[in-house]
Amino acid sequence: MSNPYQYAKANQGRFLDEYQELLRIRTISTQPQHADDVARAAEWLKAMMLRIGMHRAEVILLPEGRCPLVLGEWDGAGEAAPTVLIYCHYDVQPAEVADGWDSDPFEPTIRDGRLYCRGAVDSKLHVMSNLKAVESWLASDAKPKVNIKVVLEGEEESGSENINAFIAAQPDRLTADIAMISDGAILAPDQPSLTYGLRGITALELHVQAPISDLHSGHWGGSVHNPIQALSEILAQLHDENGAVTVPGFYDDVVAVTAKDRALLEQVEPYLQAEWDDVVSAPALWGEAEYSLPERLGARPTLEINGIHGGYTGDGMKTVLPARAFAKITCRLVPRQDPARVLQCVVDHIESIAPKTVNVDFKFGGMGAEAVLLDVDGLAMKSAAEAYTYAWGIEPVFERAGGSVPITFECMKVAKEVVIMSYGLKSGRAHGPNENIYLQNFYNGIQATIKFIDVVGEGRS
Amino acid sequence: MSNPYQYAKANQGRFLDEYQELLRIRTISTQPQHADDVARAAEWLKAMMLRIGMHRAEVILLPEGRCPLVLGEWDGAGEAAPTVLIYCHYDVQPAEVADGWDSDPFEPTIRDGRLYCRGAVDSKLHVMSNLKAVESWLASDAKPKVNIKVVLEGEEESGSENINAFIAAQPDRLTADIAMISDGAILAPDQPSLTYGLRGITALELHVQAPISDLHSGHWGGSVHNPIQALSEILAQLHDENGAVTVPGFYDDVVAVTAKDRALLEQVEPYLQAEWDDVVSAPALWGEAEYSLPERLGARPTLEINGIHGGYTGDGMKTVLPARAFAKITCRLVPRQDPARVLQCVVDHIESIAPKTVNVDFKFGGMGAEAVLLDVDGLAMKSAAEAYTYAWGIEPVFERAGGSVPITFECMKVAKEVVIMSYGLKSGRAHGPNENIYLQNFYNGIQATIKFIDVVGEGRS
Repeated sequence: MSNPYQYAKANQGRFLDEYQELLRIRTISTQPQHADDVARAAEWLKAMMLRIGMHRAEVILLPEGRCPLVLGEWDGAGEAAPTVLIYCHYDVQPAEVADGWDSDPFEPTIRDGRLYCRGAVDSKLHVMSNLKAVESWLASDAKPKVNIKVVLEGEEESGSENINAFIAAQPDRLTADIAMISDGAILAPDQPSLTYGLRGITALELHVQAPISDLHSGHWGGSVHNPIQALSEILAQLHDENGAVTVPGFYDDVVAVTAKDRALLEQVEPYLQAEWDDVVSAPALWGEAEYSLPERLGARPTLEINGIHGGYTGDGMKTVLPARAFAKITCRLVPRQDPARVLQCVVDHIESIAPKTVNVDFKFGGMGAEAVLLDVDGLAMKSAAEAYTYAWGIEPVFERAGGSVPITFECMKVAKEVVIMSYGLKSGRAHGPNENIYLQNFYNGIQATIKFIDVVGEGRS
Repeated sequence: MSNPYQYAKANQGRFLDEYQELLRIRTISTQPQHADDVARAAEWLKAMMLRIGMHRAEVILLPEGRCPLVLGEWDGAGEAAPTVLIYCHYDVQPAEVADGWDSDPFEPTIRDGRLYCRGAVDSKLHVMSNLKAVESWLASDAKPKVNIKVVLEGEEESGSENINAFIAAQPDRLTADIAMISDGAILAPDQPSLTYGLRGITALELHVQAPISDLHSGHWGGSVHNPIQALSEILAQLHDENGAVTVPGFYDDVVAVTAKDRALLEQVEPYLQAEWDDVVSAPALWGEAEYSLPERLGARPTLEINGIHGGYTGDGMKTVLPARAFAKITCRLVPRQDPARVLQCVVDHIESIAPKTVNVDFKFGGMGAEAVLLDVDGLAMKSAAEAYTYAWGIEPVFERAGGSVPITFECMKVAKEVVIMSYGLKSGRAHGPNENIYLQNFYNGIQATIKFIDVVGEGRS
């Protein structure tokens, strides 16, 4: 077949089958008991790369990593041609039916034009859209005018040790002119968007302890600072009544929202508000009053409590005064905030406000990533805009995403330009129950990546 | 043998074996899966009552109850003699090795003169001390000069529906001149104490919900009031900086601490402080500054958080912005506080301070009990003091206990006088891991109950 666009359309049914096959593999990188599943998926992806005609494919696991990455290369465009690096991740968050799923979280289920499965949108949609776009090019008579590298990460959800170590050890292996990071969400099914900013992240656990052992709440209640109460008192002080974080120094290095940001993000607001109404649907908006919804989500840092536990939380009542309680906290960061410095500010502040009647203690994970701002006027971004316009029939708007794609910062070390291309939707409930995609977004994504390779090749030829 | 005191001493080894046999039965009344264990223990206790010579014994389960009570009677003293009702409970709190036990929580283990097991002190110590005291009397030539009823409850830890329904339906079955409630703790191994006050209790669960589903904390963080944060903000407002409860109306009906209370409780303070240093051992005392430690624990009401949960609390990190979070709360009450009214005050206050950005909701258990104040100058109390002085060789001091013994209020309906006799220690870690007794307290307790029956019989004859 002479044309990758037509090839992709003719093979949609098989592409969907293969996407579902990958979804069934429980690639939960945060849970060690699923290490074998992650390794099996890596081998499956490597085999696919070779089958679709890439010249080389390799499963790579460095001593620092727990879950391998998969690297495939096609260099048929010749040494003079530019190289496009495509990044996606194939690992997923944990999921249990009990979290509120309407179907088995690891059995892809299609209802009303949507496909439900853990990893459907985050991020096996992107893995398969891109691999199938590459397949469509390599199966066609018209060959790409760019060399292609595809790197698939297996521990994006749990620290990215392996890929960070790989880039540090062998940066030349991922060298490219343009790195296309394929992850995240567009604004709406009929409104593609390009993300020019991403928030960073840093994480900690806060532990509070008062009595040396769990106590009878009748015998001792009233004489000891309940650790749950003390933890609540600390957590309640981390935001002011306007939704701003109270940690001294937290906002010190934050890059201010510019007039250009405001103009771009205004276009995004109605879409985001509609999605908020649908997906979040809380009694009211909350957050920094002087910033718009897209600014709060993309251009402002946050401090979020991801989990809390203390005492007895099972069935019935247990009149215990617990010895300890803890909370898991993450901060989303914006450009110029240093993850380590923000973490230290939070620790210092909590230590300064913690009551002297309890002991506080911290645990730190490996998670830390700087925020990113990309050039909206570069070749990569303009090529991506053309690709979306072709695949969706609508020009994209520009937004700053609230999530973190830590690899973006790493890719900026090995590629001259970086662009982020997302095919999912925020209503896809990444990380939550009933994660899903519109099936049409999978097909549009394949067309968009084909076009992106096309436009970059023409632009540089 | 002619003397119950000697009989008890001669049979200590067998008594200990039987106590351990009862401890091995997992009588966890709060967990429905242990209903069979509770029922088995009830039959075991009924059989023992008949074996030791009580005239009648019955296992009683009313439609309202989940766990049966066991009632035994001996009326050999004749119609003219007074009747002593002995109350204990044989159900226990949940326990898991993972909570911090050094040995199997349901396998009695003796180390350094202490016996470790769930229920050791709360309250199978009391069940067995009293049954073995009755056995010692009935096996002796000298018979009691009082008639004896023993009632053993199977759901003291989970609402007392059955015994409350029984007393309401057939109050004459438990009618007595003196009710001896055997539960709780004395001050120290070498300092017996008599409790003349008990706190009441009321309980609720507070649920907070904001988004309709768990969300990605990057995608939506900064735009919605995190339910864990909102819950923390509510909980943090329930006490002021002096440790007082801020709920309007909470202290309205509280009976003030009198000069006589202060004088009695001053004697208790050094013992309680030493026990606090040993058992609680928090960085500092906490609570209402203008009240002494025994006053805070016995004469002042509290609001305590027994459990909290929200979001992801497993291994690793999950960047979730959870839909909901909840806390379990109990209030300990003092005389004149009505449990239902206090509960309503707490609910009203929480509703009034809850942010409008979240939804709050409440769940209520069946747990509610009024506080009790007993007459320190009555015959029952004076007989109890003599019994302790005989068994321990030391006169008891008088205290007000922080825990709740809901049955006390019920017993005041069927008995002319009520006295509470405790053989455990606060260091026995009731409700916590490594619950234990000093073995000597078991033997002393048997002697004390024998003496109590003796003195009451003499006093009325």
